[in-house]
Amino acid sequence: MNDASRSAHTDWPFDDLESNVRTYCRRFPAVFSRAQGHLMWDSTGKCYVDFISGAGALNYGHNHPALKHALINYLLSDGPIQSLDLHTEGKGVFLTKLQDVILDPRGLDYKVQFTGPTGANTVEAAFKVARRATERQTVIAFTNGFHGGSLGALAASSNRAKRRAAGTGLGDVVHMPYEGYLHGSFDTAAYLEAVLDDPSSGVDLPAAIVLETVQGEGGLGTASTAWLQRIAEIAASRGILLIVDDIQAGCGRTGTFFSFEEAGITPDLICLSKSIGGYGLPLGLTLIRPQYDVLEPGAHAGTFRGQNLSFIAGAAALDLWSDPEFARSVADRADQLDQQLVTWGRQFPLLGPEPMGRGMFRGLAFTENRLAGEVSQAAFERGLLLETSGARGNVLKVMPPITIGKEDLATGLDLLEDVLRELNVEK
Amino acid sequence: MNDASRSAHTDWPFDDLESNVRTYCRRFPAVFSRAQGHLMWDSTGKCYVDFISGAGALNYGHNHPALKHALINYLLSDGPIQSLDLHTEGKGVFLTKLQDVILDPRGLDYKVQFTGPTGANTVEAAFKVARRATERQTVIAFTNGFHGGSLGALAASSNRAKRRAAGTGLGDVVHMPYEGYLHGSFDTAAYLEAVLDDPSSGVDLPAAIVLETVQGEGGLGTASTAWLQRIAEIAASRGILLIVDDIQAGCGRTGTFFSFEEAGITPDLICLSKSIGGYGLPLGLTLIRPQYDVLEPGAHAGTFRGQNLSFIAGAAALDLWSDPEFARSVADRADQLDQQLVTWGRQFPLLGPEPMGRGMFRGLAFTENRLAGEVSQAAFERGLLLETSGARGNVLKVMPPITIGKEDLATGLDLLEDVLRELNVEK
Amino acid sequence: MNDASRSAHTDWPFDDLESNVRTYCRRFPAVFSRAQGHLMWDSTGKCYVDFISGAGALNYGHNHPALKHALINYLLSDGPIQSLDLHTEGKGVFLTKLQDVILDPRGLDYKVQFTGPTGANTVEAAFKVARRATERQTVIAFTNGFHGGSLGALAASSNRAKRRAAGTGLGDVVHMPYEGYLHGSFDTAAYLEAVLDDPSSGVDLPAAIVLETVQGEGGLGTASTAWLQRIAEIAASRGILLIVDDIQAGCGRTGTFFSFEEAGITPDLICLSKSIGGYGLPLGLTLIRPQYDVLEPGAHAGTFRGQNLSFIAGAAALDLWSDPEFARSVADRADQLDQQLVTWGRQFPLLGPEPMGRGMFRGLAFTENRLAGEVSQAAFERGLLLETSGARGNVLKVMPPITIGKEDLATGLDLLEDVLRELNVEK
Amino acid sequence: MNDASRSAHTDWPFDDLESNVRTYCRRFPAVFSRAQGHLMWDSTGKCYVDFISGAGALNYGHNHPALKHALINYLLSDGPIQSLDLHTEGKGVFLTKLQDVILDPRGLDYKVQFTGPTGANTVEAAFKVARRATERQTVIAFTNGFHGGSLGALAASSNRAKRRAAGTGLGDVVHMPYEGYLHGSFDTAAYLEAVLDDPSSGVDLPAAIVLETVQGEGGLGTASTAWLQRIAEIAASRGILLIVDDIQAGCGRTGTFFSFEEAGITPDLICLSKSIGGYGLPLGLTLIRPQYDVLEPGAHAGTFRGQNLSFIAGAAALDLWSDPEFARSVADRADQLDQQLVTWGRQFPLLGPEPMGRGMFRGLAFTENRLAGEVSQAAFERGLLLETSGARGNVLKVMPPITIGKEDLATGLDLLEDVLRELNVEK
Repeated sequence: MNDASRSAHTDWPFDDLESNVRTYCRRFPAVFSRAQGHLMWDSTGKCYVDFISGAGALNYGHNHPALKHALINYLLSDGPIQSLDLHTEGKGVFLTKLQDVILDPRGLDYKVQFTGPTGANTVEAAFKVARRATERQTVIAFTNGFHGGSLGALAASSNRAKRRAAGTGLGDVVHMPYEGYLHGSFDTAAYLEAVLDDPSSGVDLPAAIVLETVQGEGGLGTASTAWLQRIAEIAASRGILLIVDDIQAGCGRTGTFFSFEEAGITPDLICLSKSIGGYGLPLGLTLIRPQYDVLEPGAHAGTFRGQNLSFIAGAAALDLWSDPEFARSVADRADQLDQQLVTWGRQFPLLGPEPMGRGMFRGLAFTENRLAGEVSQAAFERGLLLETSGARGNVLKVMPPITIGKEDLATGLDLLEDVLRELNVEK
Repeated sequence: MNDASRSAHTDWPFDDLESNVRTYCRRFPAVFSRAQGHLMWDSTGKCYVDFISGAGALNYGHNHPALKHALINYLLSDGPIQSLDLHTEGKGVFLTKLQDVILDPRGLDYKVQFTGPTGANTVEAAFKVARRATERQTVIAFTNGFHGGSLGALAASSNRAKRRAAGTGLGDVVHMPYEGYLHGSFDTAAYLEAVLDDPSSGVDLPAAIVLETVQGEGGLGTASTAWLQRIAEIAASRGILLIVDDIQAGCGRTGTFFSFEEAGITPDLICLSKSIGGYGLPLGLTLIRPQYDVLEPGAHAGTFRGQNLSFIAGAAALDLWSDPEFARSVADRADQLDQQLVTWGRQFPLLGPEPMGRGMFRGLAFTENRLAGEVSQAAFERGLLLETSGARGNVLKVMPPITIGKEDLATGLDLLEDVLRELNVEK
Repeated sequence: MNDASRSAHTDWPFDDLESNVRTYCRRFPAVFSRAQGHLMWDSTGKCYVDFISGAGALNYGHNHPALKHALINYLLSDGPIQSLDLHTEGKGVFLTKLQDVILDPRGLDYKVQFTGPTGANTVEAAFKVARRATERQTVIAFTNGFHGGSLGALAASSNRAKRRAAGTGLGDVVHMPYEGYLHGSFDTAAYLEAVLDDPSSGVDLPAAIVLETVQGEGGLGTASTAWLQRIAEIAASRGILLIVDDIQAGCGRTGTFFSFEEAGITPDLICLSKSIGGYGLPLGLTLIRPQYDVLEPGAHAGTFRGQNLSFIAGAAALDLWSDPEFARSVADRADQLDQQLVTWGRQFPLLGPEPMGRGMFRGLAFTENRLAGEVSQAAFERGLLLETSGARGNVLKVMPPITIGKEDLATGLDLLEDVLRELNVEK
Repeated sequence: MNDASRSAHTDWPFDDLESNVRTYCRRFPAVFSRAQGHLMWDSTGKCYVDFISGAGALNYGHNHPALKHALINYLLSDGPIQSLDLHTEGKGVFLTKLQDVILDPRGLDYKVQFTGPTGANTVEAAFKVARRATERQTVIAFTNGFHGGSLGALAASSNRAKRRAAGTGLGDVVHMPYEGYLHGSFDTAAYLEAVLDDPSSGVDLPAAIVLETVQGEGGLGTASTAWLQRIAEIAASRGILLIVDDIQAGCGRTGTFFSFEEAGITPDLICLSKSIGGYGLPLGLTLIRPQYDVLEPGAHAGTFRGQNLSFIAGAAALDLWSDPEFARSVADRADQLDQQLVTWGRQFPLLGPEPMGRGMFRGLAFTENRLAGEVSQAAFERGLLLETSGARGNVLKVMPPITIGKEDLATGLDLLEDVLRELNVEK
């Protein structure tokens, strides 16, 4: 933090008033005041390239003009803002767009449950649906998975520090090894299958299996198409519901709208949040295969499940996908990003940056855990925002907006390369 | 639903696409398209007086001009929308306002934890804080209380149908009788005290006691000042943290900003959501007495904990409280409302509408459970929106915006009186 | 402890080898070597009158001659000792006796499940049966109840210190106030009923209600016939199973074989242990109304559920009940005991010994908690064994064998009176 | 069942009175009346060779003369039978013998906690100790393990049918793969280590690891010395307590008194039951390394924890171990048994009986699950008692008394060979 921003701070009540639990602002102690696309500016005027993208909630960048326009119009028209689960024109627009642009073209048939507007709440809802539909209690989750901080979702989350914060029991979830666990030394799908079929495994027949196709908080571990297909088949053949938590991996982050499209699987339940509101506005929804839509009216509620600004911006964002060129452009950026990450792997052998993830959902795993944090810190000084991931914080997340332009991406990556080069020399 | 609105529906995907869990829209099957103050309009142009107020999330009415102005300006200026827990100018404005207008004038000293933007999440956070701070697990909650639908908050909620939807164990919460339980035939505070001090009550020493001063979802049961003071004393003298869930009762709903001001107690933790975002925009926060601010950085996270539109609108709403006239005006409306409710109690003895709640957080308990629903239905036909409350749905909630004008309130109440008169005759 | 017994100790490994968890031997540090009826002798030859009766496992006194004879004969005949749940002649004798002497004469129809030979295990079995039969999870237990130390039974036990020893969550049991709680200031049965019928009490519809008619570990609280009948009716009319834990109160301790006979209720499940083995030998069984006998073969097992010495001695003990004179004699002793306790209440007002319990299941509650322990200690010095009860240890348990003779009972009571007189003077 | 025994049945109340949960007696519907060494007789006089040995509670055979003698003498002397946790001469004899014959010669230093006299209760006690000593809640157990039917022990047991019988949540235990899981395709110790060290495995740092060295109920899976040493090291280096459940594998069943002696490990807690009472009499104890003896007096209780007949017979049984010839003789029998099992593996390839277990704790795993049950049934007809094991019942347990003579063992094995030969032909 330079002197200018530090002095700016004296006017602000953050340190005095905010809880000790705050975290991002400790590493990036700027006060942000403006944002546009892949850029942010702090109150001193310093500009940052944002490769955090709101932890996946800003896939379309900051303040996308088309979305902003729609929002301002909606506000000016005095459309209802908060509408519980009443019908509104805004919700109608969103639902229609979801159906027309996303579900129908992919041949998908889902009921939409608007939950509380957090990812955790979509997971809580999905667990309720799965447990009620199967009348079983256990949920299978995976090592390095993260699904949210409320008690039900937290039980399925693997981070020990976050779990300990619960201060109480986290029950009815069993964690199984994700693909590649233990250095890939065993077939984790076969192990899951054995545990499910073994009447003496100690694991009761579960209601659901919940997984992320790419583990955003867990260090960008990535499941292969083959593994996803096997897990889907394992679940389906045993009457276990498959929940894909696409909160961070969905909404185009991996290149397709849903992260599991490439794998050709059809989850029983899909959790969406983060970028589904388009503009960084809170929205959460659970997609439910119709036969499992068993919760009774009002059984899962939440005040903010009818957020019309989120509907409006979300619908405008979904509209982007109606042009096939959009997905193609994301794919191009993903290729560009991939080439760069692979190159760095060869270029900086001392740091050993192993490319993680896929699409625009990428990371670099370093040989030494501390390196990811050091890169993040040095990048911040240079005006590039990058966060770390993984329980040991050893993975640098590289998540530009999926809408970023070719040159802009290159510029941001250049900043990162400078940092890597410097650290590589130091080492 | 008239034919016009029904035919309007055919264009909309609600019934086809939305989950069975939807509930408000079943009773009020209009499609709303515009809202202003205490009024809403549906897509056929029909106007409704809104005495639901977003279940407490719209205390300042729909689309308050001052707040709208601030929001549009913020959008035009490209301020950051979603900022995780980074510092932003918007958050700074909100925190400063909270301190200057609310906390300092009341002599209150709290740390602010921005949680996920739902009431449930503020409760989940408060439970984590209380459990970690005390290293105990049990939470005491009360009959007819409601604190949210995620697993931790749901365990503290009393509604059996919502609890069953969990489909799994809801542990570590013990429900005690709220004031007046069992027709007021015993001293529930004395019972709580006995249970806490009895080493053989079967109830382990708890981390926290969580309560609502007025039970919004539980039928508008209302705790007296004396009872609140006793519970606060019982907690304090035993090292048990007192959590006031002011999600629905706070932000002026009862007349004062916090619902417990009259009682003169100082909770250890306060949960705020719903109207804290001012404009119906999602925001949730937990106020923590500094000595209990024990969660480690990142121990409770959530993508949407940095919502700048909510900060902006929320700050503008807090600003309303800087004028003492504002609270005075709310008190006047509350008196007007109270007189009407009391009058009806005498006027319609067959229906026996017993006034519930306090301030602008009111209800009518009917002699027969079905009556509340019937009133709500008949009112909807006449253009008045009222929801029911209580596990048996026997309480009609009467919650106008706290900003409603004298004439507007009278007009809405007249509509309700028409319904009551009609039903009273029928009976 | 006198010097003789202390020196005797030096030969023994107790203090060195036994776990810190040991408790009775701390207060009564003799080494016992012989026992007969109501008498015990330690290794120094000192004689003690035993009013502890193995905490209810020695209702028929020590080494009852008829039972001893049967046991020795069985051993000499090389009858099988441990037989899992195979049929044996010993088990046949026991079952036949149970049916002929106990069940049939009382018009009772139960299936017998031999569980692990501890009271806790009979409770664990009863909970499994109730939960499976109803497909519900919650069990209602009462303040000051004790049902055993294994995790399922412990969850229903109320003693906070014993609960804390679990070191983990104790779930799915809700404790309600026993009759007379809070100084009898409210109708606890009405409260239970309200909580069960209130869809917003926070208490889910339970599988079972478990109770002791006299709370042996909880301080000898005693339910009235009227209260028991109401609880039984409350359970029956809601499809909730009533479990009477007659582990300590049964087998004649209260005067009748089952403690609930006077109340005329028919529990759905009855837990028996302690004196059911007759001679202090381990045996535990759960009586199940036939329609609830739903556990599948082997669903609840336990190596020692086929204990033939216990069957043999238990059958011989049941045989005692075939003579109506036996119950009459127990009733006489109970009257004798009652008169004495009531007299003391008047005689020693400074100590305020309030008579507790009924039948031969008696206690004295003192005004000051420490007094019970002091009486127990002083009595031990004089050669009378008495233990304390209640979470605060303020109740002196007075539990002679139910077979004790009139003179022997008087002699033991005289010893106790001496102690009371002495303490009364000191005070 | 022949006609004679069937008609004998008509006098017996078993089918009418016993709960549906009974299981052994369904497969072996004789009524047993006499037993001696490895032989049992039913009420028709038919003789059976007993290779079940009370599921491990009769390691020293039925009615061992030396033990019988001691028991009769004790009964004749009117020694106390049930003594809670008071000191008695009987307990003194047992403790002294345990120290002199078992602990001291092996250089072991443990505190002895007498728990309720079931294996499950020793496990419940061990879990309490471990959780209190570490202030952690999770226990690691293994696939195919069995530790008892009370809720705490059941949570650590893996059998799905037995778990389902609980009808409620079984929390705070995580099951990991036992050695050889998934056909030995991965290093289960390495997996355990990875999960423990991975801060994002979803498995919280546990209080304890509980294991059986040979899985008696789980199909006779057997841990190698190397694996046991690794698990012990993994636990020790992380401050996790190692609990060896030696309830079935201990007391000489594997050849040494403790089953882990060969592995040279020193568990933090050892659970003993079954044959520790020597004569099939109930006794259970938990051995605790002194530094973990943390439960407060009375924190874990149980009426039948002072069983003097069990002490007397148990002490006499321990005395057998004072002669080194005893262990040598058990080893000889184990060799004889092993040779036979290995021979059969070659001799009956169609049945594919794979030898399982070690010492006198043996089994045969068949290629088809149903075969074990068929062998057991056919053997019963021929007068040989053998039970099955494993969640799918595919393993035939072969557990003669460890005291069986060479010729007697050969005779019993001949009976079994006849059955195998017959079935091999049929196939």
